[in-house]
Amino acid sequence: MKPRVAVIATGTELMRGRAVEAHLAYVARRLEAIGLEIDRHSACGDDLSRIVEEIRTAAARAPIVLLSGGLGPTQDDLTRAAAAQAFGRPLEFRPSAWRTIRARFRRFRVPMARINRRQAFFPRGARILPNSRGSAPGFALVAKGVHFFALPGPAPELRPMFERFVIPLLVRAFRLRRSTWWWEGCVVGLPEATVDERVRTLVARRPGTSYGLALSGGTVALHVQADKARSLRILIGDLEKEFGARWIGTRSLEETVADLLVRRRATIAVAESCTGGLVLHRLTSVPGISDVLREGWVTYSNASKAARLRVAPSLIRRRGAVSADVARAMARGAADVAGADVGVAVTGIAGPGGGSKKKPVGLVYHAVHYRGRTRTERRLFPGNRDQVKERAATCALDLVRRALLERGR
Amino acid sequence: MKPRVAVIATGTELMRGRAVEAHLAYVARRLEAIGLEIDRHSACGDDLSRIVEEIRTAAARAPIVLLSGGLGPTQDDLTRAAAAQAFGRPLEFRPSAWRTIRARFRRFRVPMARINRRQAFFPRGARILPNSRGSAPGFALVAKGVHFFALPGPAPELRPMFERFVIPLLVRAFRLRRSTWWWEGCVVGLPEATVDERVRTLVARRPGTSYGLALSGGTVALHVQADKARSLRILIGDLEKEFGARWIGTRSLEETVADLLVRRRATIAVAESCTGGLVLHRLTSVPGISDVLREGWVTYSNASKAARLRVAPSLIRRRGAVSADVARAMARGAADVAGADVGVAVTGIAGPGGGSKKKPVGLVYHAVHYRGRTRTERRLFPGNRDQVKERAATCALDLVRRALLERGR
Repeated sequence: MKPRVAVIATGTELMRGRAVEAHLAYVARRLEAIGLEIDRHSACGDDLSRIVEEIRTAAARAPIVLLSGGLGPTQDDLTRAAAAQAFGRPLEFRPSAWRTIRARFRRFRVPMARINRRQAFFPRGARILPNSRGSAPGFALVAKGVHFFALPGPAPELRPMFERFVIPLLVRAFRLRRSTWWWEGCVVGLPEATVDERVRTLVARRPGTSYGLALSGGTVALHVQADKARSLRILIGDLEKEFGARWIGTRSLEETVADLLVRRRATIAVAESCTGGLVLHRLTSVPGISDVLREGWVTYSNASKAARLRVAPSLIRRRGAVSADVARAMARGAADVAGADVGVAVTGIAGPGGGSKKKPVGLVYHAVHYRGRTRTERRLFPGNRDQVKERAATCALDLVRRALLERGR
Repeated sequence: MKPRVAVIATGTELMRGRAVEAHLAYVARRLEAIGLEIDRHSACGDDLSRIVEEIRTAAARAPIVLLSGGLGPTQDDLTRAAAAQAFGRPLEFRPSAWRTIRARFRRFRVPMARINRRQAFFPRGARILPNSRGSAPGFALVAKGVHFFALPGPAPELRPMFERFVIPLLVRAFRLRRSTWWWEGCVVGLPEATVDERVRTLVARRPGTSYGLALSGGTVALHVQADKARSLRILIGDLEKEFGARWIGTRSLEETVADLLVRRRATIAVAESCTGGLVLHRLTSVPGISDVLREGWVTYSNASKAARLRVAPSLIRRRGAVSADVARAMARGAADVAGADVGVAVTGIAGPGGGSKKKPVGLVYHAVHYRGRTRTERRLFPGNRDQVKERAATCALDLVRRALLERGR
């Protein structure tokens, strides 16, 4: 049984919405590498009795407690006093810490306020953790069977201290080794509940494995883990078989598409109506995309679809701008005009206005043209304007991905 | 004495560093407007006994408990069961909620998995809170002297539910009134430290006022509050005087630009190189933009700048694609080709590759053409590829805003 970990963040600014908790995700991932998982996280304001209470609650249920914030010199900085009270250890002045603090101020030629002396007091028996990036030292305290760590609030100060001291101290104290194997990937083009049902069945067949799901930008992000490297490998094989081409592995969809384009030596042109530039924005977030992205258009108006992408005005009149035929013509036009190998197009109704009974808000047609073949996809997306744009862009990128996979074989 | 508030976030992905808590800051600010402050925040994974324990701990010390997450249809979604257990209320099937869920699936023509039926079970006596943006209803439960609210995890679903139901229910139950007056706005085109210094001076002159800053997408978001409505009005007047045209009030920069375009009856065309569609994506996030946005280009290559925007190839050879002259020619070309009143262009080096000593990563030229005049702006942005894109897009939108403000008078 692994030791539990409790994490506490302090700071009135967190409770008042003036700052956002910044360490949990980082700490969670670093602990995972040594086989530990966070059991609970809590936060409270800069109030002595509240911090003491949080430390006591955490220490009552976890042998490892990590607290961030409250190590500065001001009246609001109460971590030293709270730890002393919670663990029944008096505060003591530590001359060596005081020398280090003074030397730092001299080095940066900053005038030192008298209150900085507070930062040289620690609960008796604490091990001082030097701060390579700021004036506030942290500390580690083993008391009442609990390994307590007090770390600075700012991320640039906390992280080096965490890597250099917290991880090695934990590994030694609890004889840890890399014990959990995990892996992340994305499934595109299926609803969350469907992905969940299918993954649950697979995981149930493989003892020692577990999983979690999260929606991210129209794709379902999947996190699986196992107690043995071999079990994880087998489970990943199961997942690949189950989801086939809908399974895009650890990279983002846009990175996957960019990589496929580069590997196929295929250039691309993009024509967007309702997504309004989002497909292009996501593609151009990938460094090096300029080698394969020829150009892109945002053609909101019918006139612009006709003038830039050579979509026949009569076709728009007959079928409507939001139709499979116009999407198809846009994709072909984009590829032709740009002289690109791949053309991708999106046309739809992002809302909130512009919908009708026959063509409601959320109706989007996607098309991709590649090597003489054009395929289209019709979707009706739920959600507000931003969500429809996001989901339609994901669908368009996925359509490109699948076309490249099939035709590239 | 104000009632205490405890906030709980659930989700194994939070504990494993796969997601970041997203509601605390928003909830804190909204509660502040009705005079409430969060006393504690905690988070735990998707584990029934852990969630029950968190609810019990929170309910033991606060009469108001807000919990987010765990309302979906999957086996990870345990909030309904945990609340039932923590408050000793059996789960009951609610046909009306089930009808609403089914109607939603029918409307979007999504195949419904059997497990979605789980979402229609609630602890006895719960008041169902409709979800206008997703399939998962929330609920409110008054039990054992505690007002408990279960809210969906995704922010676009939680926020409307919070505004429409949680705030009014709390105001009624605890006879609250609006005790703090607050206001938010953005300053564009100044560094954070400069904005901070100037606002600090103004706030110091007005007793009972305070402020907070946050960087968001290249603009500085400012939050000011006061203990009296009158003090807030006076402070806002001070801020307007201090920042003049750099002050854009409560709306986003893209909304401000869209509104100015509509009011001036000016159409716009956009030509992007290094921002790769982000200016267009941000503009098209504003509903109704189709009335004024003619079209847009992402012209990554030199050939595309020449062919689409009529930029003279000799100019590109002479000055380089990343230059004030080419930005100017792109803006003019975009306006001319599209027949739009305003043309805006961005060309630069987003990185990580492509930089040189003379033209380093982060160098961006912006240009806007309006009523026969073209103005340009050269900026050197710090940060990675995404940050450079974000800041350059903000600068381009702000350039359009200022051109419209000046020429529209």
